[in-house]
Amino acid sequence: MTDDKLFTPGPLSTSRTVKESMLRDYGSREDDFVALVREIRAELLALAEVGAGFEAVPMQGSGTFALEAAISTLIPTEAKILTVINGAYGARLAQIAELHGIEVERMELGEDEPADPSRIAATLAGDPSISHVTLVHCETTTGLLNPLVEVGGAVAAAGRTFMVDAMSSFGGIPLSMETASIDVLVSSSNKCIEGVPGFAFVLCRTALLEESDGRARTLSLDLVSQWRGLEKNGQFRFTPPTHVMVAFRQALRELAEEGGVEARAARYRANHARLVEGMRELGFEEYLPSERQAWIITTFREPADRPFDFERVYRELRARGLIIYPGKLTREKSFRIGSIGHLTTEDIDRLLNAMREICA
Amino acid sequence: MTDDKLFTPGPLSTSRTVKESMLRDYGSREDDFVALVREIRAELLALAEVGAGFEAVPMQGSGTFALEAAISTLIPTEAKILTVINGAYGARLAQIAELHGIEVERMELGEDEPADPSRIAATLAGDPSISHVTLVHCETTTGLLNPLVEVGGAVAAAGRTFMVDAMSSFGGIPLSMETASIDVLVSSSNKCIEGVPGFAFVLCRTALLEESDGRARTLSLDLVSQWRGLEKNGQFRFTPPTHVMVAFRQALRELAEEGGVEARAARYRANHARLVEGMRELGFEEYLPSERQAWIITTFREPADRPFDFERVYRELRARGLIIYPGKLTREKSFRIGSIGHLTTEDIDRLLNAMREICA
Repeated sequence: MTDDKLFTPGPLSTSRTVKESMLRDYGSREDDFVALVREIRAELLALAEVGAGFEAVPMQGSGTFALEAAISTLIPTEAKILTVINGAYGARLAQIAELHGIEVERMELGEDEPADPSRIAATLAGDPSISHVTLVHCETTTGLLNPLVEVGGAVAAAGRTFMVDAMSSFGGIPLSMETASIDVLVSSSNKCIEGVPGFAFVLCRTALLEESDGRARTLSLDLVSQWRGLEKNGQFRFTPPTHVMVAFRQALRELAEEGGVEARAARYRANHARLVEGMRELGFEEYLPSERQAWIITTFREPADRPFDFERVYRELRARGLIIYPGKLTREKSFRIGSIGHLTTEDIDRLLNAMREICA
Repeated sequence: MTDDKLFTPGPLSTSRTVKESMLRDYGSREDDFVALVREIRAELLALAEVGAGFEAVPMQGSGTFALEAAISTLIPTEAKILTVINGAYGARLAQIAELHGIEVERMELGEDEPADPSRIAATLAGDPSISHVTLVHCETTTGLLNPLVEVGGAVAAAGRTFMVDAMSSFGGIPLSMETASIDVLVSSSNKCIEGVPGFAFVLCRTALLEESDGRARTLSLDLVSQWRGLEKNGQFRFTPPTHVMVAFRQALRELAEEGGVEARAARYRANHARLVEGMRELGFEEYLPSERQAWIITTFREPADRPFDFERVYRELRARGLIIYPGKLTREKSFRIGSIGHLTTEDIDRLLNAMREICA
C-alpha cells in the first residue's frame, strides 16, 4: 500500500516505522507505558534545550486543546494578554483567552508583516497592566516566521510572561526556550516531530504550574492536575491515546537518528528551497518575501497572467497521491504547499513534475 | 510480536487488523477521510438504534473529554442535575457539572447498590427544579449494571432530560436510545467497539444541539461548533486523530462482521461466565451478586482465608503477558478482571491457568 504524500500543515506524512510501532496494544497504567511517557516528556524538554525548572505536560486532543489547556490553566482572569496577530492562529489565541474571561489587547498586523519587537516593547512600556504576551512562531496561515528570540527578549526585558504557539515549528526550527525567554510553549504530536495526530503538549516553567493550582476552568484541560498526576505515578488522569504516544516515541527516536533538530531543519530547508525554485520555474510566485518565509509551509499566489483552477490542480495532484492545501489569505487567491513531514527533495521533485504536467 | 492481553476496563486488546488499518496516513480534509467520518457517525447512530432526530458527534481526547463536552455544552447554568452515584464515574459526572457552575443533587448509593427507578421518580416528583438526570450504565468501579431502561422510563415520565455515561457498555450491551429514553449518550473509541484510544463521542437529540448554541464554556469542547463544522463540510474544526479514526472504522466493520452488538454481547457474556466459573473454582468470590453484575468487568474480593499478595499475582501475570487491574472499592481489598476487548474464552482459560499456577 502506497501512502498519499501530504504537503500540508498537518496531519503530515509519517515514516512506515512510526506507523508500525502502533501494531501493539499497551495498558496505559503498565510500567512500560509509564516509562515511555517519561521518555517522551524528558526528550521534549531536551529538544527545547531546557532542563530543571521546566516541565513537559502532554495533553490529549489536538494542538488547540493544549493551547486552551495552557491559557485556561496558567493565565488568571486578572491578567491582560498582548496578542500578536498576523494570521488565523494568532487570532485563535485571542479567541480562547477572551472565552475564558481574560482581557486581550490585539496587536493586529498584516498577514505578511512579522511581529515587531520594538513596537511590542513600546506597547509593554506604555501599558503596565499587560502581564502576558502571546506569539505564533510560524503562522501557517501564510508560512510567515515571527522573530521569536527578539520578541522574547523584549517581553523578558519588560518582565512579562511569554507564551508561544510553536505548533508547526517545534522540532523543525532550532529553538531554545531559555535563549528566546519562552515561559510557555505549545506544540503537537503530528507536526515537525513527525508523529501521528492525537495529542499535543505544553512545555513551561515549573513555577508557573505551581502557582496555577486550582485555576483551571475545566476538568479535562486542567494542565496542573494533568502534571501532578504524571508526577505522582507517571500515569495520565484519563485514558491517553496509547498507540499515538508509542508512535510519538518512535518519531522522537527517528528525529535523534536523523541528527536532531538541526538535521531535520536542514532537510526541511532543502525541501523548501527545491519547492520554491521549481515553482518559480513553473511561473508561480511566493506570497511572502523570502526573508519572512519559514521553511515549514509556503503560500503561492494564484497566477494572474493565465487561467488557474485550483480545484482542478488539487484534484489532479490528489489522483497522483499528492496532497496540497488551499490558501488562507483573506485578500487574495492563493494555495499552500508544505515542506515538513516525512518528505525529501525527491518527493518535492515528484510534486513539481506533476505540477508541470498538470499546468502544461 | 505477541501482544499483551489486556483484561482491563480499557485501553483494551484490539485485533491485529484494527491496528494494521493505521499503517496509512490520511489528510484530515480529504474526501476519503471525510467519507470515513461520515460512515462512523452514521454507524454509531445505527448501533444506538436511532436515526433522524439524533446526531453523533465525535470529540478528540478521552471519554472524559466527551463527557465534559456534553455537560458543558448541552446543560445550561440554570439547570439542576440529579446525579446517581454508585461509583467513581458517577461522582465524576457530578464533579464536571459543578465545575461548570451547574447545581447537582447527588443521589449517593452504595457501590453495590444499583439505581432505583422508583426512588428517582419520587425525587423528580418532589423537586420540579431538577431538569436533568445522569446515570452511568455500567459502573466500572465495580462492574455494576444500572437498570437503564427503567431509569430512562422514570426520567421520561417526569419530562426531564436523561444523560447516560455508556463508556464501558456501548457496543457490548444491547441498548436502544429510544427504548431507554436516552437524550444524551457518551462513549469512547476504545471500549466495546474495540478501537484504539484517542477520541470519544456524544450521541444526542438534534434539538438539544440546536438549542445549545453559544452555551459552550470552552473552544475545544464546544460540542455544537464541532457538530456544525462536521455538518458543514464533514471536517473537524481542529485536527482529528486520523489514524485512530481509521482504526475505529475498521473496528466498526469487524463488529458488524461478528454479528453486531448481540453477537459481541454473547462473546463477552461467555468470557464473563467462564471467568467467574474458573475464579470460583480457584476460591475467589465476586464482590457483586450476579444479578447486579454486568459482563464487562468483574470485581473479585481478595481472599480472607489465605494470604494473597495482589502485587505479586499482578506481576507474575504481567510476566506472562496477562494484564489484570487493581480494585477500586473504597472499603475492602479487591481486584478487577475485564471480559471485553479482543478476547475469547481461550484467553480467559489462559488467564485462569496462569492464576492457578501462581496461586498454587
